[in-house]
Amino acid sequence: MKRLDCAIIGAGPAGLEAAVNLKIREKSFALFGKRTLSDKISLAPVVENYLGLPGVTGRELAAFMSRHVAGMDIEIVEKHISMVYGMGGYFSLATSDETFEAGTVILATGAFSTSHIKGEPEFLGRGVSYCATCDAPLYRGKTVAVLAYSEDAALETEFLAGVAGKVYYIPGGKNTAKTSHPAIEAISGKALEILGGNRVNALRLDSQGLRVDGVFILRDTVAPASLVPGLELIDGFIKVDAMMRTNITGLFAAGDCTGKPHQYMRAAGQGQVAALAAVEYMQQTEKTMRKDN
Amino acid sequence: MKRLDCAIIGAGPAGLEAAVNLKIREKSFALFGKRTLSDKISLAPVVENYLGLPGVTGRELAAFMSRHVAGMDIEIVEKHISMVYGMGGYFSLATSDETFEAGTVILATGAFSTSHIKGEPEFLGRGVSYCATCDAPLYRGKTVAVLAYSEDAALETEFLAGVAGKVYYIPGGKNTAKTSHPAIEAISGKALEILGGNRVNALRLDSQGLRVDGVFILRDTVAPASLVPGLELIDGFIKVDAMMRTNITGLFAAGDCTGKPHQYMRAAGQGQVAALAAVEYMQQTEKTMRKDN
Repeated sequence: MKRLDCAIIGAGPAGLEAAVNLKIREKSFALFGKRTLSDKISLAPVVENYLGLPGVTGRELAAFMSRHVAGMDIEIVEKHISMVYGMGGYFSLATSDETFEAGTVILATGAFSTSHIKGEPEFLGRGVSYCATCDAPLYRGKTVAVLAYSEDAALETEFLAGVAGKVYYIPGGKNTAKTSHPAIEAISGKALEILGGNRVNALRLDSQGLRVDGVFILRDTVAPASLVPGLELIDGFIKVDAMMRTNITGLFAAGDCTGKPHQYMRAAGQGQVAALAAVEYMQQTEKTMRKDN
Repeated sequence: MKRLDCAIIGAGPAGLEAAVNLKIREKSFALFGKRTLSDKISLAPVVENYLGLPGVTGRELAAFMSRHVAGMDIEIVEKHISMVYGMGGYFSLATSDETFEAGTVILATGAFSTSHIKGEPEFLGRGVSYCATCDAPLYRGKTVAVLAYSEDAALETEFLAGVAGKVYYIPGGKNTAKTSHPAIEAISGKALEILGGNRVNALRLDSQGLRVDGVFILRDTVAPASLVPGLELIDGFIKVDAMMRTNITGLFAAGDCTGKPHQYMRAAGQGQVAALAAVEYMQQTEKTMRKDN
């Protein structure tokens, strides 16, 4: 696998501006996000405060940004990153069907909901998982529940059903996709609490209780702290310094995920700083490696 | 005098974006700078990384920005602010012929040279001054030297000559303006050192030495720490937090003066944050005042 210089997670203004700067600096990178950009931008009626483009609609501003990256041959990879693992010197990023490696990561995941299911943070890594591809092998022949909030959750659930003994599929949020597999039982209900002792042993829905060995929670937006183990937050947002460095070496963050005010211009400016700081970090790392060899 | 909600010093991307945001929030403010925007922008051959406006020349980008502020009826006041004084609850800003009052200040003064003349920081306030209008009365009948680097320094020197006993006028940098006044003696030379004991008593040029009671240094760009007494710096730049707050309550900073990388997008993003943080500060102050009454 070719290791990228950088992986950018999120294709709103922060992620796009980071990509533009990495492209100019001739770095290899992948930009993960939706090609339609952030839904939120397109919904904005009029944006008056994006300097240089007065009075544009959200849709127009998104079009300006899309044209900019497309004109530089920057591709948006429509894959959902479920986990980022620090590997000591580089990062491994898991999607539902592939793994990427990158020397640096820029989190530009946007504003996120900090709400979670009762028991979710407590049992993370002890029966709670956000990535079917990554953790399916741990549940061979066992019983698991999938809380399927994202629209591509059905696919991941079917993959899981090929490994696990029994899978409960519980669609939620905007996801109404159905799935069919002999090992899958679709159930309707709202998840209330994840229960267990040392490890998960049950899921309580408003409709019924289920005995399970694991709970997979598949959301479109993952809270950054769930995405990257050990990431430091402040007031619920990713803690960054003036160069957009997080507490994890080689990992940067930009845009709404770093705090308020949630504004396009601020996000784009931070994306630029994060990219240039990542480039500086790459150069330092390279120098150190040369010295060591 | 009507007290403004905010004074923005500097009309580069940071200052302009701050102004746009204050205008939207319906705040009263003055934007001090040059109508031609920053000279540096216009000199940039091509800017590739201003998201939404790919491949523009510096001149084109400046034109996009100018049109944006002009379209919102934002006026650029072409006055040079020489000092900002914290008055406890508001700020007083001195120009060569007028004083402004504002509840908050946003410094967007751009990158600045940190070089100074030997002895300059040591004798600041003890014979060294940056503002002829402010400090002329202290030198009634005395002998002063003017190191005249800015192009409008000749005017200030003539004002000073009406008060002081004897004025040495020493043009430098790009300034070649001449001046005529019986109390002014033009001298050519490069300033090497400001000397004195408790207070300034001499100026050493490469050509000669001068006995003086004071030295006025008139530059186009004033280092922020000279502009605002007590302003905290870090690595030579203005120290700000994530909301662009400086160590002085009510005083914000944005853009190149807060550090590197020196980039338009970063500057504009910070200008936005500074403006919104200033608005938040105004609201809090107003609430406190209402409670007190």
